[in-house]
Parts: sequence; C-alpha cells; structure tokens
Amino acid sequence: MKALVLEEIGKIRLRDIDLPTVPGPDDVKIAMKNVGICGSDVHFYEYGNIGPFVVREPMVLGHEGSGVVVAVGANVTSLKVGDKVCMEPGIPDWTSRAARMGLYNLDPAVRFWATPPVHGCLAPEVVHPANLTFKLPDNVSLAEGAMVEPLAVGMQAATKARVQPGATAAVIGSGTIGIMTALSAVAAGCSDVFVIDLQQEKLDVAAQYPALTPVNLAKEDAVARVRAATGGWGVDAVFEASGSMKAYDTLFDYACPGGCAVLVGMPAKPVAYDVVAGQAKELRVEHVFRYANIYDRAINLLASGKIDVKPLISKYYSFEQAVEAFEFAAKAPANVIKTQIVFA
Amino acid sequence: MKALVLEEIGKIRLRDIDLPTVPGPDDVKIAMKNVGICGSDVHFYEYGNIGPFVVREPMVLGHEGSGVVVAVGANVTSLKVGDKVCMEPGIPDWTSRAARMGLYNLDPAVRFWATPPVHGCLAPEVVHPANLTFKLPDNVSLAEGAMVEPLAVGMQAATKARVQPGATAAVIGSGTIGIMTALSAVAAGCSDVFVIDLQQEKLDVAAQYPALTPVNLAKEDAVARVRAATGGWGVDAVFEASGSMKAYDTLFDYACPGGCAVLVGMPAKPVAYDVVAGQAKELRVEHVFRYANIYDRAINLLASGKIDVKPLISKYYSFEQAVEAFEFAAKAPANVIKTQIVFA
Amino acid sequence: MKALVLEEIGKIRLRDIDLPTVPGPDDVKIAMKNVGICGSDVHFYEYGNIGPFVVREPMVLGHEGSGVVVAVGANVTSLKVGDKVCMEPGIPDWTSRAARMGLYNLDPAVRFWATPPVHGCLAPEVVHPANLTFKLPDNVSLAEGAMVEPLAVGMQAATKARVQPGATAAVIGSGTIGIMTALSAVAAGCSDVFVIDLQQEKLDVAAQYPALTPVNLAKEDAVARVRAATGGWGVDAVFEASGSMKAYDTLFDYACPGGCAVLVGMPAKPVAYDVVAGQAKELRVEHVFRYANIYDRAINLLASGKIDVKPLISKYYSFEQAVEAFEFAAKAPANVIKTQIVFA
Amino acid sequence: MKALVLEEIGKIRLRDIDLPTVPGPDDVKIAMKNVGICGSDVHFYEYGNIGPFVVREPMVLGHEGSGVVVAVGANVTSLKVGDKVCMEPGIPDWTSRAARMGLYNLDPAVRFWATPPVHGCLAPEVVHPANLTFKLPDNVSLAEGAMVEPLAVGMQAATKARVQPGATAAVIGSGTIGIMTALSAVAAGCSDVFVIDLQQEKLDVAAQYPALTPVNLAKEDAVARVRAATGGWGVDAVFEASGSMKAYDTLFDYACPGGCAVLVGMPAKPVAYDVVAGQAKELRVEHVFRYANIYDRAINLLASGKIDVKPLISKYYSFEQAVEAFEFAAKAPANVIKTQIVFA
Repeated sequence: MKALVLEEIGKIRLRDIDLPTVPGPDDVKIAMKNVGICGSDVHFYEYGNIGPFVVREPMVLGHEGSGVVVAVGANVTSLKVGDKVCMEPGIPDWTSRAARMGLYNLDPAVRFWATPPVHGCLAPEVVHPANLTFKLPDNVSLAEGAMVEPLAVGMQAATKARVQPGATAAVIGSGTIGIMTALSAVAAGCSDVFVIDLQQEKLDVAAQYPALTPVNLAKEDAVARVRAATGGWGVDAVFEASGSMKAYDTLFDYACPGGCAVLVGMPAKPVAYDVVAGQAKELRVEHVFRYANIYDRAINLLASGKIDVKPLISKYYSFEQAVEAFEFAAKAPANVIKTQIVFA
Repeated sequence: MKALVLEEIGKIRLRDIDLPTVPGPDDVKIAMKNVGICGSDVHFYEYGNIGPFVVREPMVLGHEGSGVVVAVGANVTSLKVGDKVCMEPGIPDWTSRAARMGLYNLDPAVRFWATPPVHGCLAPEVVHPANLTFKLPDNVSLAEGAMVEPLAVGMQAATKARVQPGATAAVIGSGTIGIMTALSAVAAGCSDVFVIDLQQEKLDVAAQYPALTPVNLAKEDAVARVRAATGGWGVDAVFEASGSMKAYDTLFDYACPGGCAVLVGMPAKPVAYDVVAGQAKELRVEHVFRYANIYDRAINLLASGKIDVKPLISKYYSFEQAVEAFEFAAKAPANVIKTQIVFA
Repeated sequence: MKALVLEEIGKIRLRDIDLPTVPGPDDVKIAMKNVGICGSDVHFYEYGNIGPFVVREPMVLGHEGSGVVVAVGANVTSLKVGDKVCMEPGIPDWTSRAARMGLYNLDPAVRFWATPPVHGCLAPEVVHPANLTFKLPDNVSLAEGAMVEPLAVGMQAATKARVQPGATAAVIGSGTIGIMTALSAVAAGCSDVFVIDLQQEKLDVAAQYPALTPVNLAKEDAVARVRAATGGWGVDAVFEASGSMKAYDTLFDYACPGGCAVLVGMPAKPVAYDVVAGQAKELRVEHVFRYANIYDRAINLLASGKIDVKPLISKYYSFEQAVEAFEFAAKAPANVIKTQIVFA
Repeated sequence: MKALVLEEIGKIRLRDIDLPTVPGPDDVKIAMKNVGICGSDVHFYEYGNIGPFVVREPMVLGHEGSGVVVAVGANVTSLKVGDKVCMEPGIPDWTSRAARMGLYNLDPAVRFWATPPVHGCLAPEVVHPANLTFKLPDNVSLAEGAMVEPLAVGMQAATKARVQPGATAAVIGSGTIGIMTALSAVAAGCSDVFVIDLQQEKLDVAAQYPALTPVNLAKEDAVARVRAATGGWGVDAVFEASGSMKAYDTLFDYACPGGCAVLVGMPAKPVAYDVVAGQAKELRVEHVFRYANIYDRAINLLASGKIDVKPLISKYYSFEQAVEAFEFAAKAPANVIKTQIVFA
C-alpha cells in the first residue's frame, strides 16, 4: 500500500509499505478520507523525535483522521460498511491497570498512531478497533471528523477544569490547541473566555468566534485586562496552551481564589513555578495528556452546532500532494490553523 | 409604603404597610422595577401554606425582583445609586455552620422573601444586603433581571449534575422550572436536551429553543425515544422538574450507567423509588433546594447571550394591577411561563 | 472435576461437572482454598433466582474465594505458581463502553461467578484472568483473602460516600454488609460510626469493634441518639445496608445538610422516598452495585491492620461438608456473620 | 494585660499591652491555657516578616491556643463558662465572596492571630468569635487542644488529596507539618504512608507511629523504595511538606498515573516544575493555605483516638518563661516537634 512515510529526519515520501489489511474480529477497515497535519507530525519530520519518542525506522505519519468503513470484523455490530467515521488514534491494553480505572490514555503500553514505532493513518486504508472508531452524524463532514482529534485535546482540558455554567476562563495561546481549548471551555459552560497571545494573526483567528475575546499581550497588560473584566476576582479557570515557559510568570495571576489552572501546552524544559502564589489562592492544577472517553461527546458538540471547527481548516492538499502539504505546514503563516490532506 | 399584601388565604390587596426604609451600613435601598410571579406566590395565595411554612399574618408577596439602587449604606463599595440590579431573596446567617461551608441556602435560619413570616419585594422600595444585590450589565434588561431568580434554580440543578461538555440530558416537566433547567443544562455543556411533558402547549414553549427537543409523553414512549437517540445508552443526566409522583416510575430508565438524576420538582408525598434500578446503574442522585453562589454566573450567561429568557416573559401588569396579575397567574393557560408586575 | 452444584431450587450436591482446566495466555489456574458462603448463594439455593437472574440449569456456587496459583498463562508476569491469591469474581468485557469509563462493574455483559448462567468457584480448581487475581501479602491469610469480596462491597460504599477525615456516619443494618460498610467507613476516615439494627445479637458483633457504636432501634430512638451525638447536625454519611423498606422512613433524618446517603441494601420492592426531605438538606444519594477497582485497596487495609475481618469468620466446613455448610448457612443464627468452606 | 509582645526583629518581652477584654454578643472570652510555638512565630521573631507580612509595630505572638471559657456574649448558645476549648485563629469577613463559597480561608480580609498587624493569643485572656471556638471533649486535653491548629493544616492537605480508603501516600518532610500531614493521610484512609527526610532525628519521630514508614533520603533512593513498595505503580498522593525547592526534582516520580500532589510546604522561591512529567501521569496538583471547616473534624479524630498528637509535644514552658521558650524553639534540635507555653 502507498503511504506517507517519514524515512528519517527531514525526509518524507509517498511510497509502498506493508500495512495490515485484514480486520480482526473486533476491528473495522476504513478507507481514509481526510487527515489533518498536527504540530507533532511536523516536529517528527523536522527533528526526528519528541522527547523520548525517537523515529528509528521508517514510520507512516498522520493521526487526525476520518474515512469511510469498507469492511467490518465478525464481532462488530456498532458499525457497518459505508459509515462515515473518525478514529481515536491511541490503542491501549484494555486490561491494564490504568485502563481498568478509566484512564486508558495513561496506559504506558498504549500504541498511538504516528508515535514511534507505531504507523499512522496517512495511507489509503487502515485497520482499527471498532470501539475506537466513531460514526459521524449526517451533518458532520469528513473534514470536520478529522478535526475531532485536536478538538478532543481541548475538550479533555475543559473537562478537567470542571467549570460551572457561567464561569469565566482565560486561555494562554491562540494556536490550534489554544483555540480548541477555548471553544471547548465555551461549550463546557463558560460565558466569557479570553484568548491571550502575542501574535495578532493568531488572535484574529480566535476573534472570528463571538464567544472568544482576544487579548494581545504585546499591546496590553493581559492580567490587568482579565482581572478588570472579572471585577478584580480573576477567572475560574486558566488554561496554559502555548507551551511557553514565560507564561508561568503570570499564569496564576489570572485565576480567582479556589480556581483552577489546566496545563495543556508542553514547555521544552521545567518552568519556574510559584508555589506560594498557588497556595495563596489554593489553586487546583490539572495536567492534560491526550484524552480518554471524549470522542463521542466531541462529536455531539459538532453535530449540535455548539462547536464549529469549519473556520479552522485553512488549507487542503490531495494525498498525492502530501509531501508538499508537509512542507507548507512546516512553514505555515501564523493564521493557518489546520492543513488537511484529502484522499480521492 | 403601599405594598401587595397577602392578608389571608385567597385575599390579597394593595395597601399601606410598615417596611424598612433605611439601609444599614452593608445594605442598599432599591426602587423596585420588575417582579415575577412565582408558583409559590400563587400557592400561598390559594392555599395559605407550602408544607411547614404557613401564612399566619399579613405578608408582602414577591421574591423574583429587579430594580434600581436609590441609596447605599456606609460600607458599600460594590454598588452605587443608579445601578440596575437584581436581588437574591434569601438572607442567611453568614456565621452559621451551613454558611461557613458554602451551603448558605441550607442554613435553617435563612430569611427568604415571601416565605412566612418574611415580607417579599412587591413594594415600591426594598432594603437588602449589598452582597446579595447584583449589578446587571448594560445589555441585560430589568425584565430579564427579574428572571434570574427562577433561572438560578435551574442553574443550581445543572451545576449539581456536573455534566461534561457534550453530555446528553432529559428534563421531565416543561413548566417554568423545567425550561430553566433545560436551558441551564445546555449552558452547562449538554449538546442534546430532551424536554418531556404531557401538555403540548408547554412543550411548544420549549420548542422555541433549537437546543431543546420536546417529547410528548402522551403521544410517544419517551424512554424509548431518549434511549434510541443515545444509541441505547441513556442520557448522562435526567432532571425531575415536574413534581409529578408518577415521573418516578420511569425516571431511572432515562439515565445511562454511572449517570445522574437531579430532583428539582417537589412531589406532594413520598414517591415510589426503585432502589435496585438505581443500583444497577450506580446512579448519583442530587437534590436541589433553591441555590447558592449562582446569581453572578446566571447573569454572566444572560449577558453573553448563552441563555435567553426573553421568550419566557409572557405577560406584564402594572403594580397598580398587581391583584389582577395574581388572578391571571392563578388561572394562566399552560403556555404562559412568566407573568411580571412592573413598577412605574 | 467434583464441584458444589446447585441442581435446582433447594437441591445442591457435590458431583462431577465439566469446568475449564487450561488457563489461556492471560489467565492463571488456582487451587481453591477458602470460599465464603454469601447470602446470594443461599438465596439462589432457596429461591432459584435473584431478580432477573434465574437458575435454569445446574450451576456451581461460590464467589468469595481465595487459593494458591498452580499454573500461569504465557503472558502472565504479575503472578507465579505458589502465590497466595484472592479473586475478583466478575469478568467484564474490557472493551465495552462502561469498562472504558472505569465502570466495569456496570458492563451489562459482565460474567460474574455463581450468577446464572456462570459457574462459581466452589470447585477444587478454577481458571481466572490474571488481572482479576490479587496476590495476598504474607500477613493476610487465605481465610481473610476469601473475605475481600464482601469487604469490597462495603469499601465501594465507603468510597462513594467520599467522606472527609473526621467525618461521622451511620450504617443501617448490622449484617455482613452492614459491618463491612461500617469498617470501611472507619478506614475511609470516619471518626465515629453508628451501627443501627433491631437485633441485639447482630449488634453484639459490631460491638467487638471499638470504633463502631451499636444502636438498638428496638430499644431507643436511633435518630435522636445520632443527632444528639452530632450536636443536632446529623452525620455526614448514612449507609442503608439492611435492605429494609422501612429504613427509608427515617433514612434522611440521620444526615446533615449537604450530606450523603449511600444505598447498598437491596429492598424487595420500590420504597417510599421523601424527595422533599432530601431537598431540604440537598443530600447526595449514591447507589452501590458490587465494586470496581477496589480489591487492591481492600487488601492494603487488611495487610496494614486498619481493617480486621478475622472476628467475622464464625464457622468453617470442609469442602466435603459443603452441602451441610449451606444448610447451616441457610438457618444460621443472627450472630453468625460468615461461614467458609475450606479445601484440603 | 501582660502579653508576649514581639517588639521588633529579635526582641520579644512579656509586658503590659491593651487588648480587648469585653466579648461582643457573638463572642466568648477565654482564659488561655496552652499555646504552641509555631515556626511562623519564630520566623517573625528572627526575621520580622513572612513574605508580604511585615511586623511594623509591636504585636502579640501565638496562634496555636487552647483555654477555658470565662465569659460568653449575649447571643452565644453553643458554649458556656467553664468549657474547655481551642480556637481557630483566622477571622474572615463572613459576608465576603470567598467566605460565601465556603473558602473563608482565602478571604483577603481575614484577620489571623499573630500575622501583622493582628495580635495573637499569648496573653492570659482573649476575646474570640464563638463560631471559631470549639469545645474539646472530656478525653482531649488542653495540650492536645493547642495542637489542633497545626493538625488542621495537615488535615486540609489530606482532605484536598481526596484519597480513597486503602490508598498509599508519601510525605516529603518529617517536621511538624510533615508529620501532621502523614497522620492526617492515615486518618483519611491511607493504608501505607512513607515519610521522607534527610535527617534521621526527624524520621525517628515519625517512626514512633506504626502506620508511618520513615525513609531516609540520605541513605537510600526514596523514589525507588516507594515505587518498589507499590509494585512499580507509585503512590496515590504525594505531599510536599518540606518547603525544599529540591524536593520538586523528584516530586512527581513518587506519584501513580492519575494521582495527586499536594503542596503544603512554602519554598522560598519559585521552583523548577516539570510540566511534561505531570502531564505524562495527568497529575492533579492541590495547594494548601491554612484550612477551612476542619477544626471540628480534627477534634473528632483526637477524641476517637484515630490521631494521637501527644508524642509530638516535646517540651513545656510556663508563661513566665515565654521568652526563654522562644529562644529554645528558635534553636531546638531536630527531634523537637512542638514546644508549648502553659498558663497557670
């Protein structure tokens, strides 16, 4: 099968590679339709690793995928040939200790698409467990379906914040994950969400959504702005979605007493963390690692129209142009949120 | 001061009565503008009691109020003359054990407007603690401000459900509290909310909101409908907002394993409760008594447009017509949600 | 293999029956050592069903078991031959929706020992998944190991109560599950636990534990006693562990405002439930169905000495006397908590 | 009244000072009996400030106090003359936003004994609100009563951890707060608590308690020890109670996936915090600032014998020797946990 293979640092190509083609009894086979390019795909392409995950042999890229079911295993009753679907890309050992507790994203044995040495989904067909393959309602397109993966990260963050309806929030970072988090926070009940960044082009993307209030750190004192807007009290939840180490200098200043900080962004090194500031407000800090039990609810929100990801798909390439798509994504301007590769 | 006084069962009139007029140091004085008529006001009017609360002497009615600040006590810095406000009607002992825990609505010593023997707010001016008086933003009208009280009940219910974003819910009862609960459940993150009732006129009110799906129990099997819509799994939260004893026959059938039932309606007598059915799904059941720490977030949701209560205000009467307003409210057709009395 | 088989209502015998003997790659084979007789075993023996679970063909009884590992499957690394173990008796489909959420006890497809049509563990050898087989520390005996199953029910109840350290509790019912719940509530942080029953013999069992305070409903007003002991406030958590329908008449009177009621006992029919009383205190009600993710922590508490179940094992029979053991258990006096069958 | 006054850095003396002597209607007057010396008292004595709290004028020291009621205000019904009591030292504005939410410890306007400019309790008599004055049961001594304050810090930490019964924990730091936290974690349900320190003398204090397992960081790899003891999984909760910045290098290594870290110790500067390590386990991090709604439960645990603080009171001085007591406390050897000053 012809797939998009990362051969080594900086070298990707479309070429034949052996991949599974026969679904097991609990699996389905999917003809891929849309695959989004994620920052992590680009990072593997440019650097060959993310932390301890090192590309040591050729690997198929891609983990944000949607498609159409073309075959189902003997035990599968939840899906049928022709169903439009999207796929949760991490396959845990369901019998592991973490999975038994409902924390299957934390199972160390999880096999996650396009995280070495596991092949991703940038191939015409993939075989996947039926219970990680989700039917898309009629009014959710395949392009939207391929957005469920990054949206799920934002929803994991918003879910962990456990905000009450009418709460307020601030999101540091107006990139893909920042906007996904901000939209999820709105969907989760927040009445007012401030999105904070240094780049106006990124904030302009957030500004398309009336529920989001962009704040340009380069132009104003974001903490002062957020505190003033909340009567001096601070927001119920602050989400760190930039990965910036510097964000931690003021992170807790946004939050209200008894509030919450959710850490989604992955800073390159340990950050300077002000324990005493966190204590003065007895903040709760939550950390996010991918997602678990989120896909069905993310799809519900797309279907109901409460979250609209369509404005975030900036650019499409055909599968044949996949290498070019990666070159574009690696150098994309700040206002490009998502580039997708589309199969015929 | 001329106020709307319930003299005894079935007899209300506008007449002079002695009420406080001088704010204490932590109080404000408010010129009343809009007061909604609640089912409990009507119940006191028709029956003279609600459970243990018996009207034994003349009492001013009304507890769903908004107005304009006309004087502020010496210590008050959060409000100023001219502010448009709404008022939380229950004044607890803030030093009580329940209040210290944040459960001030459960303080047995709470003094609640128009619950005997405490006078309500159907009077031209009221004196109220500043910390229970909430400024309305410019884009929230006084008519909307007087809807915050019933909305707060629905929001207390939705808050206790602790639903995750993209959850599903069912609300039994399409009266004022049912619709307030359903709108709050949507605001709290639900993607799909079914509103279930026997009266089509009531369901037609819910049907104005695209996020709500009316289900007429008289015409279809509501449990089957809800289960089918959730793939056989059931909803994450079911809200009992009808007060019907019969609702308990099927209440748990709507819920999913590990789900939640929130009991808002007040049935007249103990209900037949199927413990084993609740155990088979390990349901969590929450009970609602008014609200605490809700007003500011309810106002946030009105200001942001996430909740729109304007379609629910069916009818206005002037303060001079207040007796007539009560006679109307006592016999109002099923599609009348809220009747308000307006001061000049 | 010779096993204790329930042939039909009222008829059990030791006889040969075909049972699995070869562990799969993720299984272990266990030589059984101690098996407790549970009220549900006796109920199947006497009535042939529990609710919808009907004995339609011969079934091996027993689900409270401990033993010694005699063989391990190819993939098993957590256990080895010779390990002293106890077994969690319900095997879910780990890929099911409930199990993915950590609620594997609620998976409708769970196969639970000695719940028709699944065979139990009253046989010399059983094959069981390694991830539901728990190693006992040196200082926990096989007799104690066979008590982990009923203890796990009490711990599920105590865990759901989410009591804070120093909380107070009341347990209705001083039978096996009542005492297991009371001991678990103490282990979970309660400083004072009242155990309430009508039978003095049962209360005398509870009275062996200094942390438990027996209250005889036949001799005193238990609600008044508990309220007085808590300064009129009520207990943080009340556990219904008797299955009595009458218990619901006063259940909520024990609880404090904002408190919790945990329903463990299974009443024969729907109970009369006072919704308004629950609302006045905004109680949280939790329902218990077996347990999930409890066994390891139950064993920790036995090993540390924080829970001592040894005084609760009243009587031992050999496997050869198993029929006699059931006849005894079916008519056991009120002060017999647990009868165990012991393999040579 | 003669009190122990901190005049300026390094200078304390017993001398006359004006203090309130007449209880208001909701207050009681207490004859002081035992007052513990806290590290913060010593820190003000030696350095004149703690963070932003600077001693600018003479201040009475002491905030860990017990005594006997000698007068009660007109409204007080919960206490009477002669009652043995201990006192919660922080008086919030009960009408504040934080207090209304049950977070009264976070009210910025809280007036806390011996935190500048508020006088403490090292005086023969103090006047205090009745609702912050707690009756001690007969079997809790005045010396134990004066230990409730530091115990409450540990219990706030253990409460925030929300551990389940049978959980495991590690506490970094075997000083007063570390041991209080460890004992609270045991009381809160932990079966195994590791106490980790570099100083053997401090660990020897912890070793008096069979439920605590001391681990000397100077002699062994504490992370390896804790991980081995938990089968490689890690503890459910790790408490940082040393204030050491270095503790953060390995803090998250102790915790299990989905576990919790509670930050009690106050490091002098921002620490190096490994966000990605926290994400890999999706840890929840809680911060502790004093306590709220803890005193009654702490007293319950002392009365029930579940927590025994008597071995921690190392040394007594009379009030007349109070200056000497401070000089001792400032230079106390590592195995001295608590020094108390006793009134005649």
